[in-house]
Amino acid sequence: MTEEIDQKLLEYRNSIDNIDAALIHILSERFKVTQKVGRYKKENNLPPADKARETVQINRLRQLAEDAHLDPDFSEKFINFIIEEVIRNHEKIRGN
Amino acid sequence: MTEEIDQKLLEYRNSIDNIDAALIHILSERFKVTQKVGRYKKENNLPPADKARETVQINRLRQLAEDAHLDPDFSEKFINFIIEEVIRNHEKIRGN
Repeated sequence: MTEEIDQKLLEYRNSIDNIDAALIHILSERFKVTQKVGRYKKENNLPPADKARETVQINRLRQLAEDAHLDPDFSEKFINFIIEEVIRNHEKIRGN
Repeated sequence: MTEEIDQKLLEYRNSIDNIDAALIHILSERFKVTQKVGRYKKENNLPPADKARETVQINRLRQLAEDAHLDPDFSEKFINFIIEEVIRNHEKIRGN
């Protein structure tokens, strides 16, 4: 029975591992773009954070999450987690 | 000049928005699998968290991140953020 459990769990975990590899690669692309944004903001003396933009992003993602049957509250926590990292990176680029 | 700045930022933001939509949809798939894991663990009386598995996941993602030129420390924070949510969901399924 233990072996059977392991086989089933292993199957699920293989899917999770594949999905995680996809997430890492997509996140890497996302940070490439936000690094460009960071440099662009520095060159044009724009502030690292943009609250109006963040509000639009959060509302859009909550809607997308709902359509995809993902908890909208989790999607909001997720985008805030990413944005915090982006702003830390923008501040580094800016030399703060 | 302001209009030019906006055009460039808009371009970057369109890419970010597309990437975020991809992330939300992939995350939704990931939680579908972990929900199955949660139900399976409940049925087989397995604990919600599995520290050995988490260590393997973290080390694997750090390596993947490095290969993809993403900050490995960020990838570790990211997977911990996701795992925390998964364990919360497993505990809910378990009725804790």
